[in-house]
Amino acid sequence: MKRKACAEVGIKSVDIDLPEQVSEAEVVCKVHELNANPDVHGILVQLPLPKHINEERVLTEISIEKDVDGFHPLNIGKLAMKGREPLFLPCTPKGCIELLSRSGVAIKGKKAVVVGRSNIVGLPVSLLLLKADATVTIVHSHSHDPESTIREADIIIAAAGQAMMIKGSWIKPGAAVIDVGTNAIDDKSKKSGYRLVGDVDFHEACKVAGCITPVPGGVGPMTVAMLLKNTLDGAKRTLES
Amino acid sequence: MKRKACAEVGIKSVDIDLPEQVSEAEVVCKVHELNANPDVHGILVQLPLPKHINEERVLTEISIEKDVDGFHPLNIGKLAMKGREPLFLPCTPKGCIELLSRSGVAIKGKKAVVVGRSNIVGLPVSLLLLKADATVTIVHSHSHDPESTIREADIIIAAAGQAMMIKGSWIKPGAAVIDVGTNAIDDKSKKSGYRLVGDVDFHEACKVAGCITPVPGGVGPMTVAMLLKNTLDGAKRTLES
Repeated sequence: MKRKACAEVGIKSVDIDLPEQVSEAEVVCKVHELNANPDVHGILVQLPLPKHINEERVLTEISIEKDVDGFHPLNIGKLAMKGREPLFLPCTPKGCIELLSRSGVAIKGKKAVVVGRSNIVGLPVSLLLLKADATVTIVHSHSHDPESTIREADIIIAAAGQAMMIKGSWIKPGAAVIDVGTNAIDDKSKKSGYRLVGDVDFHEACKVAGCITPVPGGVGPMTVAMLLKNTLDGAKRTLES
Repeated sequence: MKRKACAEVGIKSVDIDLPEQVSEAEVVCKVHELNANPDVHGILVQLPLPKHINEERVLTEISIEKDVDGFHPLNIGKLAMKGREPLFLPCTPKGCIELLSRSGVAIKGKKAVVVGRSNIVGLPVSLLLLKADATVTIVHSHSHDPESTIREADIIIAAAGQAMMIKGSWIKPGAAVIDVGTNAIDDKSKKSGYRLVGDVDFHEACKVAGCITPVPGGVGPMTVAMLLKNTLDGAKRTLES
């Protein structure tokens, strides 16, 4: 999907497939090679890595100027801090904010509830909503009574990875719902034997929500678009400096 | 206060007073000198700096191994991210958690509301509470109806810098209240003409809260203690490596 999207907009993408037995040192060496290559403006390490490789170590080696995924802790730190700006925003959280903004959903002063606290979505989208002046609550697997917290939200970002955990009755009428979940559930009517659903029960929720993203087809394509945007921004920055 | 505390526990502290007109380059040069000095295990830049100096630039120059304040964006990023550990926790947030823990207040699964989102207290203490599995809400100057949000909290961290904004009636009976605010208000009965109060109306709140820190004398001394602890930890780490 990412490769196809690159081709469509005229970004040249190169796949580097390494064998599963590759050593950590070799992966790091490959990252360094790409860091040094002036023709490369964005580096994306496809996760998860094989278990014998330290993911943190590899990700930290990506040059901050080419970290188009925005996962470097220095980037996350600047995203968190008032008055600091990261070079790249993580793609899915950036896509969530873009979806809200393009749908005319105001964020400032609104109650936003983020369900899930992953490094990739829940945490950074919470930080972005906070920077956009929402009152942010982060709900997770240890939260008691998530339902009552979610029911107060003007904006819900569902990123828990729990198939259809958020029911229609959990949603405040008119709330904006961004469903980041992608969960496979059994479906004998499909040739594959499964279908993809979000963290929100879409059929119930779409009757209550003011606006809602579908799964698949909602956040996913926007994440890819933001990755392309980050790469373009990175290239511009390099060429301008 | 910090100097006296250092002397008490046997940490040698050195003050470097620079004139207000000092250039940014000179401050940075001084930081580099301290970074390189093996006898120095912690560097603290007293804020605010004069306006002509870029605070962010100076703070970023402090070696991450000696950043006992824990304000480096790389430290904050690691504090935010699941599975990562910063070298140092910022002192006041670390002190808040220590106060809760020593008072026997469980954090896991509890509703925590942090009032204020500063880089120094509100933001990092929110991230720490989240790591400790609380359901965290961050309330700030753009939040509508902070009262109703605060009233649901099992744990309140008040760090807004607004004298006595949190009334007794805003507090759920039995809640744990950590008051980080230090605000001067007029008081003609004092020789100085003012007295220090927190962000919480202590006299009202202490009748409702399960436990509460006073201002002054609560969080302040704990912050200094955590700074000493960070410095000791930093020194140990250096000597062990």
